[in-house]
Amino acid sequence: MHDPRISGLFAAADDGELLIGGERASDLVERAGDTPLFVYDRSVIDRQIAALRQAMPRGVELHFAVKANPYQPVIDHIAGQVDGLDIASAGELEFALASGCDPGEISFAGPGKRDRELDAAIRAGVTLNCESAGELRRTLTIAEMLGETPRIALRVNPTFDLKGSGMRMGGGAKPFGVDTDQVPALLRRIGEAGADFRGFHIFAGSQNLKPDAIIEAQAQTVALVAELAAHAPAPPPTANIGGGFGLPYFPGDVPLDLEPIGAALAETLANRPAILKDTRFILELGRYIVGTSGVYLTRIVDRKESDGQTFLVTDGGLHHQLAASGNFGTVIRRNYPLVHAGRANHPPEETVNVVGCLCTPLDKLGDKNDLPKADVGDLIAVFMAGAYGRSASPERFLGHPSPIELLV
Amino acid sequence: MHDPRISGLFAAADDGELLIGGERASDLVERAGDTPLFVYDRSVIDRQIAALRQAMPRGVELHFAVKANPYQPVIDHIAGQVDGLDIASAGELEFALASGCDPGEISFAGPGKRDRELDAAIRAGVTLNCESAGELRRTLTIAEMLGETPRIALRVNPTFDLKGSGMRMGGGAKPFGVDTDQVPALLRRIGEAGADFRGFHIFAGSQNLKPDAIIEAQAQTVALVAELAAHAPAPPPTANIGGGFGLPYFPGDVPLDLEPIGAALAETLANRPAILKDTRFILELGRYIVGTSGVYLTRIVDRKESDGQTFLVTDGGLHHQLAASGNFGTVIRRNYPLVHAGRANHPPEETVNVVGCLCTPLDKLGDKNDLPKADVGDLIAVFMAGAYGRSASPERFLGHPSPIELLV
Repeated sequence: MHDPRISGLFAAADDGELLIGGERASDLVERAGDTPLFVYDRSVIDRQIAALRQAMPRGVELHFAVKANPYQPVIDHIAGQVDGLDIASAGELEFALASGCDPGEISFAGPGKRDRELDAAIRAGVTLNCESAGELRRTLTIAEMLGETPRIALRVNPTFDLKGSGMRMGGGAKPFGVDTDQVPALLRRIGEAGADFRGFHIFAGSQNLKPDAIIEAQAQTVALVAELAAHAPAPPPTANIGGGFGLPYFPGDVPLDLEPIGAALAETLANRPAILKDTRFILELGRYIVGTSGVYLTRIVDRKESDGQTFLVTDGGLHHQLAASGNFGTVIRRNYPLVHAGRANHPPEETVNVVGCLCTPLDKLGDKNDLPKADVGDLIAVFMAGAYGRSASPERFLGHPSPIELLV
Repeated sequence: MHDPRISGLFAAADDGELLIGGERASDLVERAGDTPLFVYDRSVIDRQIAALRQAMPRGVELHFAVKANPYQPVIDHIAGQVDGLDIASAGELEFALASGCDPGEISFAGPGKRDRELDAAIRAGVTLNCESAGELRRTLTIAEMLGETPRIALRVNPTFDLKGSGMRMGGGAKPFGVDTDQVPALLRRIGEAGADFRGFHIFAGSQNLKPDAIIEAQAQTVALVAELAAHAPAPPPTANIGGGFGLPYFPGDVPLDLEPIGAALAETLANRPAILKDTRFILELGRYIVGTSGVYLTRIVDRKESDGQTFLVTDGGLHHQLAASGNFGTVIRRNYPLVHAGRANHPPEETVNVVGCLCTPLDKLGDKNDLPKADVGDLIAVFMAGAYGRSASPERFLGHPSPIELLV
């Protein structure tokens, strides 16, 4: 609980038990009826959104990328507080529409949109972030068959990337978006077809903890939007300048300082070229909005010694928390923050390995963690479980039950 | 099709189209009604089992590890040809029982078995591969409450490992099994409790392509079983000596030569100590039995150029084939074998990247593959998709539909 990665997010009861949304971890498990369990704390989400609103320039809009956490109550809760939703499949389109979000504020990106997905998106009236000449052709054909005017933005593959990102999304050959040299021809085609041109979508990277890198990428993105806008059928009504705001997952990581990013973005936008004066700028954030809100609660099934080390074997594992096990998007495994949920703020008494229930050495939740003494039946809480948790894990692996999810 | 990794497994029609189980890839997609699709070819499974029976010494039994592919028709098909099934959860217990497999020939391993799983296993009469003192205690307590005599084998954490394995399962501190120095006390406890002692389970590693390493580990395993048997309440009726037989996934990998392994195992068993003379030896194989039988068929949704490279964007991806994308259990990504399913044996015409439909740079099925010209609507076949495919992938990631599975 004194870990800087989770400092101030969650409290403990007088006896030391972890509180999530003011409720005891054990009470939440009782309410859910079983472990493992994802609990998402809406107050943590709300504070994160408030911090973004506070730091970012007035007028900059905030979108939530549904892919980060497609649990419907989470989407519903967030949809009421942000300016739009971003989706990546027809499945996510259904989630987004179910939240009541205005279809005009939903945008759909993804390099492999199928015809049936384009069809559903055009019918729903959401904006398609078009990723290639071929996709634009298919979109216009389907819209014509439907007799609809499609809302189209161009996703652009930037010539730069967001330096030091968890994922590089721009720079060089990429399956995402349209290379800048192909953009003018596609903009012409959009104009000729009489489509509703919605602007640009440029995503340079994700999970970045370096304010300077984000500031630089945002400035480059706005400059690129201005440059491309000169070729557009009309000034771009919107520019989705991506996200990339990172969270501190690993020991030594420091939470991102939003303040300088907001100040720099305000300056960038104040000095933007005239062609962008009426453009609405959108930040698309998924992980950053919801990642810290989630806690994964799993129960210790066995405690054993092997070759001088202690293992706490839990009923959870990588089938629910693949990223926490170090097997998704990371080369070197490092620990997510975790605590003994019953004694969350007690001083450590021993060094243990926390593993999952799967028959594979990959299934590790904590490597050499210093924890108060824990035994069979106790709960372990793994933090940073709000984004890319359940939906980004191989849930069916080894035939275990699905995890439960709760929004509190 | 000339790739040594898949040589002889699948044929092509006169026009070059890939045949799976004698059926055209496009006909299989039509039968399934959609892509992406896993097709498992029973004749490939049968040949693999036959090769094992041929190479391994007479009397050595063959078990299938359900975790490798829990698709019920696959389990049912294999159960009829092997001597038993190995499971890793109560969910897999249900699959195994549904196949009609004799419960006496089912064994249940896993470091985190819950009380309810022990309960279900004892009621069903399957063998529990007990992994710790605590688990043995819980097993005996539950059996007593049920008034049942539990079938118990001890899973032992070997002091050696299978050298050069994809996964090291033995050697040093591990959450799996019981360290050898703790074994005598647990064997005593099993005897005192009047449980049905079934023997030992020792698993030293997996996915190994080196016959010499497998030969050495098998010899060490038999020697360890003999040493531990001296402390047992009775000579061990069975010894599961694990598996570890690898498949050639990556360029340059050579299929495992079974012949020397079988010959060495025959010699090891011929010279085994008297205490093991009536012991049934079991090889537990999952991946090796079913891995080569599977083909993942996915359709090209877009073809695009970026910075001088060609991308074929498919409707499949890492949400179905996490391991093929290089994101599960491997540090460096290398290509699984793949072909243009419509022109499977045609000479290459271009170098392309085959990617999935997900909005992440991790979603790569093929990096710089030499293929005949492929376009939107064509099918790509990714081989080696029979094991740890669908069930070991984050199926819900980004809200796409589940893949279809077919056994032909």
